[in-house]
Amino acid sequence: MKEGSVVVVMAEGATDAQIEDVVGHLVAMGFDVHRSTGAARVILGAVGGNDRAEPALIELLDGVREVVRITEPYKLASRSFRPEGTVVTSGEVRIGGDEVIVMAGPCSVESESQVRAAAAAVKRAGAKVLRGGAFKPRSSPYSFQGLGEEGLRLLRWAADEQSLQVVSEVMDVSQVELLARYADILQVGARNMQNFVLLDEVGRANMPVMLKRGLSATIQEWLLAAEYILAQGNRQLILCERGIRTFETYTRNTMDVSAIPIVHKETHLPIIADPSHGTGKWDLVMPMALASVAAGADGLMIEVHPTPDTALKDGAQSLTFEHFGELMKRVIPVAEAVGRTVAGSR
Amino acid sequence: MKEGSVVVVMAEGATDAQIEDVVGHLVAMGFDVHRSTGAARVILGAVGGNDRAEPALIELLDGVREVVRITEPYKLASRSFRPEGTVVTSGEVRIGGDEVIVMAGPCSVESESQVRAAAAAVKRAGAKVLRGGAFKPRSSPYSFQGLGEEGLRLLRWAADEQSLQVVSEVMDVSQVELLARYADILQVGARNMQNFVLLDEVGRANMPVMLKRGLSATIQEWLLAAEYILAQGNRQLILCERGIRTFETYTRNTMDVSAIPIVHKETHLPIIADPSHGTGKWDLVMPMALASVAAGADGLMIEVHPTPDTALKDGAQSLTFEHFGELMKRVIPVAEAVGRTVAGSR
Amino acid sequence: MKEGSVVVVMAEGATDAQIEDVVGHLVAMGFDVHRSTGAARVILGAVGGNDRAEPALIELLDGVREVVRITEPYKLASRSFRPEGTVVTSGEVRIGGDEVIVMAGPCSVESESQVRAAAAAVKRAGAKVLRGGAFKPRSSPYSFQGLGEEGLRLLRWAADEQSLQVVSEVMDVSQVELLARYADILQVGARNMQNFVLLDEVGRANMPVMLKRGLSATIQEWLLAAEYILAQGNRQLILCERGIRTFETYTRNTMDVSAIPIVHKETHLPIIADPSHGTGKWDLVMPMALASVAAGADGLMIEVHPTPDTALKDGAQSLTFEHFGELMKRVIPVAEAVGRTVAGSR
Amino acid sequence: MKEGSVVVVMAEGATDAQIEDVVGHLVAMGFDVHRSTGAARVILGAVGGNDRAEPALIELLDGVREVVRITEPYKLASRSFRPEGTVVTSGEVRIGGDEVIVMAGPCSVESESQVRAAAAAVKRAGAKVLRGGAFKPRSSPYSFQGLGEEGLRLLRWAADEQSLQVVSEVMDVSQVELLARYADILQVGARNMQNFVLLDEVGRANMPVMLKRGLSATIQEWLLAAEYILAQGNRQLILCERGIRTFETYTRNTMDVSAIPIVHKETHLPIIADPSHGTGKWDLVMPMALASVAAGADGLMIEVHPTPDTALKDGAQSLTFEHFGELMKRVIPVAEAVGRTVAGSR
Repeated sequence: MKEGSVVVVMAEGATDAQIEDVVGHLVAMGFDVHRSTGAARVILGAVGGNDRAEPALIELLDGVREVVRITEPYKLASRSFRPEGTVVTSGEVRIGGDEVIVMAGPCSVESESQVRAAAAAVKRAGAKVLRGGAFKPRSSPYSFQGLGEEGLRLLRWAADEQSLQVVSEVMDVSQVELLARYADILQVGARNMQNFVLLDEVGRANMPVMLKRGLSATIQEWLLAAEYILAQGNRQLILCERGIRTFETYTRNTMDVSAIPIVHKETHLPIIADPSHGTGKWDLVMPMALASVAAGADGLMIEVHPTPDTALKDGAQSLTFEHFGELMKRVIPVAEAVGRTVAGSR
Repeated sequence: MKEGSVVVVMAEGATDAQIEDVVGHLVAMGFDVHRSTGAARVILGAVGGNDRAEPALIELLDGVREVVRITEPYKLASRSFRPEGTVVTSGEVRIGGDEVIVMAGPCSVESESQVRAAAAAVKRAGAKVLRGGAFKPRSSPYSFQGLGEEGLRLLRWAADEQSLQVVSEVMDVSQVELLARYADILQVGARNMQNFVLLDEVGRANMPVMLKRGLSATIQEWLLAAEYILAQGNRQLILCERGIRTFETYTRNTMDVSAIPIVHKETHLPIIADPSHGTGKWDLVMPMALASVAAGADGLMIEVHPTPDTALKDGAQSLTFEHFGELMKRVIPVAEAVGRTVAGSR
Repeated sequence: MKEGSVVVVMAEGATDAQIEDVVGHLVAMGFDVHRSTGAARVILGAVGGNDRAEPALIELLDGVREVVRITEPYKLASRSFRPEGTVVTSGEVRIGGDEVIVMAGPCSVESESQVRAAAAAVKRAGAKVLRGGAFKPRSSPYSFQGLGEEGLRLLRWAADEQSLQVVSEVMDVSQVELLARYADILQVGARNMQNFVLLDEVGRANMPVMLKRGLSATIQEWLLAAEYILAQGNRQLILCERGIRTFETYTRNTMDVSAIPIVHKETHLPIIADPSHGTGKWDLVMPMALASVAAGADGLMIEVHPTPDTALKDGAQSLTFEHFGELMKRVIPVAEAVGRTVAGSR
Repeated sequence: MKEGSVVVVMAEGATDAQIEDVVGHLVAMGFDVHRSTGAARVILGAVGGNDRAEPALIELLDGVREVVRITEPYKLASRSFRPEGTVVTSGEVRIGGDEVIVMAGPCSVESESQVRAAAAAVKRAGAKVLRGGAFKPRSSPYSFQGLGEEGLRLLRWAADEQSLQVVSEVMDVSQVELLARYADILQVGARNMQNFVLLDEVGRANMPVMLKRGLSATIQEWLLAAEYILAQGNRQLILCERGIRTFETYTRNTMDVSAIPIVHKETHLPIIADPSHGTGKWDLVMPMALASVAAGADGLMIEVHPTPDTALKDGAQSLTFEHFGELMKRVIPVAEAVGRTVAGSR
């Protein structure tokens, strides 16, 4: 913890000795302590704190009723660190500016013909970034796990053919170097949002990173994970909302659209919306894409597939080329309605 | 259960006698049963079912591996019942048609001056329906509970002065008659979504009802609650998404924007979005209102208050008149971007 | 809100005028305010608060960074109100004392033979209270809704025959008087936990009430609902944990066993565990009953049914008489291991 | 997917051509298909499936109403694979047998004196395994991250001095070899439950692994993660329930005690309960430890610390030596009440 503030509410009837003991611990943790004595109880306000300050421990002391942490514990990610906002640049693509950027492509790279067809189609419709997985995190060990480096090679080739940027997921520290050779943007997936070793590693990479929100991560935890990357010196960071886990079973996840304006309020980082994973159903992708752009998303990440019904993974949430083209057309007026344009549209 | 279908998967090695026993129970519950014999196991498909059919019980029988219910258990609410969609009419206001309808007003009616000022302001900005609570469901018994009938009288008066319709919450069967005298639309709140006695009662009322989604209700449970109302003969039903409970603590609730297209796909009923309760923070109301309209909402429900900082309840989520006017202006182009207009705008 | 305390953290750079404005509002809400000035910011501690104090509103004022409520907002339910704990008495049954009390019976009363057989069986095994529903909250309007008063009559008769107390659910204010004629303990179900009109009404009844936790109610909300009942003067209150809604789909609900020690720590009220609803699967009832008693539950609520496979509701979570007898035998040593006995066992 | 079964419900009015198309796709995925023709619709039961079968894709085909997966997709973890249950052996400690095994120690290794004192204390009270973190997953990059290899060395030394086994967390593939040199049991933490690269790697290690449940992992996802480890050949696997994320804020997590009997029913693997992380509050550790043992846990994992109020992490959930001694004494009769003993007690 660094530069936070903490409020300690003493129990009614706490003795002076108990209060002194609490103050002593707070001071030892590097806090500047202010005492406020009311009719019924004493409240201690503590500002500061050193590296090893762990205010939660104060709860254990005698006479303490409650300990409340006040300040947000991230700093580099915070809006006040860079009030004008961050624009992440990949090639000629600017993410976080006036334009809404669309990233699209198949969930997994399956074959040369599939990825080339997808690249051509998404380019034609206006996407700026080609997505595609070479290493796939799969719940079951018996599912298709991706083509690995061969998949990356195909992805890069198809993207270059269409002058597209490439985003692809890195699943482990050992893959960072490999991914960096083929991709323009490193994606850290939802399941790895708190893989801190990986966060540190991509924080040392000299290229844009897109950090997806974990399935059950609060926005604060997500921003703390972002802080890991920023703290290593990499400031080319993009966030991506892709749905959270709730009790609802109709959709695969519940897409938290409100995370979009919240990220804009709390941080200076651009945010992409992924309605494909956010809903898990292709016929909800369009309305949720429109909703995300209306809420201020800086971009969209959309799964498309030449023939979704034979896709190896997530087919049920992939759009056909035709549906994707339709989506791009309908996103344009919504983007304009909120004062933005869609990159690639004209 | 009525007219559903059920699949019973028998365990490997289930005996003929066990299978016969399961078939017998299904038939007794009114199902038409189809047997499918595979290499390893038998699967029974059951279609139909009478009033007392409870397929879950089949799980208890020997030799049964799993029981899966297939069909949605609502019927009158289902899109196929009325593929063209329902338009609910209140005075000259049509909810569910091409126009996006805005309902706005204070959370609680507090005084004559407050509600009259609010009515004038929301009318001026383009709202068609005045909202305001006379009976308030409050978590704590020590919080302000509403003005009761006096509040309803003030609400009606202020609405009439501005030619607005009135929507207000009914909290108990005993209040239905009273509410019906003053309001045009009866609101059933989130906490009462499964108050089945109340659902039956408003189902017998001859006026529009707006049913809010419960805090932890799945969409299916919500539509079943709607089915209670429809089954009593009242077809003037509007649904309202107002946020669900998740682990996220930044917002008071997580607004499930995807519920909007899902309700449109699964049912013929109009759906209103309530971003004020859906987020609990006034500065998120605007982006979530825009997102909801982009996702297809038939209307918005917005809390406004003459002076939010002295409001007795939920002030922190109420908009000032000025912010509300701004919201109305910004909703118009988004509505147009998705092919709709905003009632009252010009 | 009453007698709480609130901490207001001012933003860095908040002006004196802003601070004065906040202090003014707090004082107007009845708080006693203490200012604590640190190097970087001012923290205001506020203790007290009158009926209409709504600290959330303070967040709207200029210069305010965050508002934190400290004290629990319930009072009559709080352990400090009655440190020795409450024992609720129904006939000769004492709930909240040394003995673990078992309530058992069918989910719904279906017929004379069913309820008489169940009463005899649960009595024989050691239960002290007969449970059974006459009015059933059902998600679907097409499911069996209960026998109504005839069911209550049968339940009372069967209980009297075996010298058992009766607990049964009241679903609406209009049913309180009827239930009071037949039952010894009024049950308020999970779906009605925030039906405040009903809470007030059972708070005025002169008989024990058992309040189930709502599906998505925090423990604090549950205790506030309890406060409604206590505030009306009824102090014969029992709480019942019956599982909360989570993302897990294996069980119908996730039984929050930790609510048992928490209720004992925070309040003086007895708490019953309902593993039948808490899990929804009969083969999990036994281990969760043992776990609940080990965690300190004052009683158990168990569904039993003469022939679960023909039960009209929840059959899949009901125990047979034989399984129930086995459960009672296995609960005894666990209760003794934590220093209690099981009423009815010997 | 392998050896599952799937049920496809066709829409009313699906044409023969549509049905044939679905059958064709299922057959191509390696399924054996059985058709069941009812009055209103056709249901297809499909058993089998090859490596690339993705039944979800079937939903995309015309005429399909719903696709339901039936069989659990794990195999090596399933109870039927080893009905007699697995006992994992570490030194002379047997986990999954009649004895309840207690693992205890500090959250993080901080110093020689701390870990030696903890080792001596937990040994004296009856623990068999010393726990302690050398690499700590911390939400914030500014928190204490652990002592690394020096911490492991201290941990091993302290354990050897007391003849205890050692369990410690491995956070990344790159640490497996190092951990294997110092620890007896490799712990995979909740945040890494779906770090599939790490799962594969520990699956190739020749030593016991303890896999904690992810914060928002369903039991099925957890067992699929276990399947990854088992599929690599490592059969010395222990599961650990440590609380899931829910809406409740009183506890840090909601400990899902029902996961204990469910794991025993569905798998042959031993399961440990971690009430320290499961609740986050030291005064709930005791009741939840007792509850877990009553529910059938094969062991407990408990945080203890010489002086919790100066601990660097999670102090608020750590027990003092005195409280831990008390816990061990109270666990014994509960274990005996469910027919087990506590290793180390006498």
